[in-house]
Amino acid sequence: MVPLNRQILLAARPVGFPKETDFRLVDSSLPDLAPGQFLVRSIFLSVDPYMRGRMNDRKSYAEPVGIDEVMVGGVVGEVIESQHEKFGVGKLVVGMFGWQEYAISDGTEVRIVDTGSAPISTALGVLGMPGLTAYCGFLDICQPKEGETVVVSGAAGAVGSVVGQIAKLKGCQVVGVAGSDAKVAHLVDDLGFDAALNYKSTDDYYGKLRELCPEGIDCYFDNVGGPISDAAFALINRFARIAICGQISQYNAQKLEQGPRLLWKLIEKQAKVEGFLVFQYVSQFREAMQQLSEWVDSGKLKYRERIVDGLENAPRAFLEMLQGENIGKQLVKISEAP
Amino acid sequence: MVPLNRQILLAARPVGFPKETDFRLVDSSLPDLAPGQFLVRSIFLSVDPYMRGRMNDRKSYAEPVGIDEVMVGGVVGEVIESQHEKFGVGKLVVGMFGWQEYAISDGTEVRIVDTGSAPISTALGVLGMPGLTAYCGFLDICQPKEGETVVVSGAAGAVGSVVGQIAKLKGCQVVGVAGSDAKVAHLVDDLGFDAALNYKSTDDYYGKLRELCPEGIDCYFDNVGGPISDAAFALINRFARIAICGQISQYNAQKLEQGPRLLWKLIEKQAKVEGFLVFQYVSQFREAMQQLSEWVDSGKLKYRERIVDGLENAPRAFLEMLQGENIGKQLVKISEAP
Repeated sequence: MVPLNRQILLAARPVGFPKETDFRLVDSSLPDLAPGQFLVRSIFLSVDPYMRGRMNDRKSYAEPVGIDEVMVGGVVGEVIESQHEKFGVGKLVVGMFGWQEYAISDGTEVRIVDTGSAPISTALGVLGMPGLTAYCGFLDICQPKEGETVVVSGAAGAVGSVVGQIAKLKGCQVVGVAGSDAKVAHLVDDLGFDAALNYKSTDDYYGKLRELCPEGIDCYFDNVGGPISDAAFALINRFARIAICGQISQYNAQKLEQGPRLLWKLIEKQAKVEGFLVFQYVSQFREAMQQLSEWVDSGKLKYRERIVDGLENAPRAFLEMLQGENIGKQLVKISEAP
Repeated sequence: MVPLNRQILLAARPVGFPKETDFRLVDSSLPDLAPGQFLVRSIFLSVDPYMRGRMNDRKSYAEPVGIDEVMVGGVVGEVIESQHEKFGVGKLVVGMFGWQEYAISDGTEVRIVDTGSAPISTALGVLGMPGLTAYCGFLDICQPKEGETVVVSGAAGAVGSVVGQIAKLKGCQVVGVAGSDAKVAHLVDDLGFDAALNYKSTDDYYGKLRELCPEGIDCYFDNVGGPISDAAFALINRFARIAICGQISQYNAQKLEQGPRLLWKLIEKQAKVEGFLVFQYVSQFREAMQQLSEWVDSGKLKYRERIVDGLENAPRAFLEMLQGENIGKQLVKISEAP
């Protein structure tokens, strides 16, 4: 048996931007396995923007995390004890095991890790939920066509960086919006974006974006919202398609932010805006994963990870991700891979 | 030949809400017909919200009307002289002949009036552009399903009243938003809406709409925008479809109005918002018109018209329409039908 299970609980509901004291590290013991259960040792924990929403009291598309409950999160781990037929000892698995060193599962919504020759950490990134989010949401809603201009906000994040590269693979002109010069350089030099804007270097998002998109914007994939999206909306072309994946600029707002009314623009440009959650595409996951794996294996789809060591540092990693410290996928390493 | 052609010109670009002095009535003479042309005597002129946009200097989806140019507008008229093969003397035609008593045309984008047993005025309303706008936009974007809740703003107008009745024909629960108790009574008592809200009777659009839509909103067809749309967005269900047809609350704004940011809601509800112009559905007009005619003939689709007499009163009719004085289609009668 495991001596102790360290866990990170939600200690308090954040007011505005979360603090480390909104979390609490505790030691707990694990019960014995019941038939049909197995025990997972966490290796990597994913921290993602959606977790900010779960810290609020208000039900959105999912239930909030309760006070003193383990924070939700996707984890890659190894099965180290099992009374389950499918998930035997030694299997590498990915599931919503939460912010903790060990988890007991009955296999519900758990997958065997299948990242081919790529590291198992990619099961939380380019070959996991973020990669599927990018692939399914972008292709379904934006329907990118060769030669079109695609703008991606949050472009250096786990989802945005995949969207931009898929857009390049589809023959589009791709412009990223990100929050540092290092990110801009990464997007253009490493990932092959045609251009990128460091939005922290200017107040004139509209003017800068117009320079980078002389033909206007046909597809906008939005992870950020707020004034960056206002500028993008102002530049859309006729029949533009806008996918709303995230609104990270709004997650810490204490009341609904005001902004310019945008609906008239949608008539003028006969344009479409659609919000989505990756779960709605579950029937396409298998095909999407095959394509993503193929692109990763052949080097057409690149990824970067930022890894913080130790479960105790997960709150800091999460806060840094919310502040945009990460380039690519933000992970927490909890224990060694086998 | 015609002695004189009275015309209404755009005299000045309106600042905010237009005034009668933004228009000017003039007498002009008509040139002789060239081969391939015909002369139309105007019978009914349509005044519509889109005309407000054309009075501005800024190009939107169409060119602005120039100062001292005849105001644009759809007209039903009779051919009274012709050097055109198809459009012979005595034909009743509908086209963009403008705010004037007579017009010379070469037949471009002119249709023979085909309203069956319905009066020719319907070629500007339920069996014209407003009817097609309602039919094509609502069915394509909203994809209404039996039992769903549909909300229509501007519900007593030429487009909204058709949308609501089509929604009823599709088995939906239909709630209209309109600007007077008389309109509310008309929607419910005459057109068969399940409920309607007089938005001028309350400040609590959200609370009132929630009462009328206890199951939430699956489809929202928006002619109005502004705070009414904010309330509707707050009540949408998962996978809601929102068609943006007009934003009449915004047309007289002198700068972009601010409102609550709505994009997050689209993620939470996996919802779609789409703006459209009726012209994009031109390939469906024939089929749409057949269905609309059938419904009108069988009494399933009702309509009302508000008719102001005399070309000289067209500016007043237009301003009254912008202020919501009309129930149903606002028309100006310019001369007698044959």
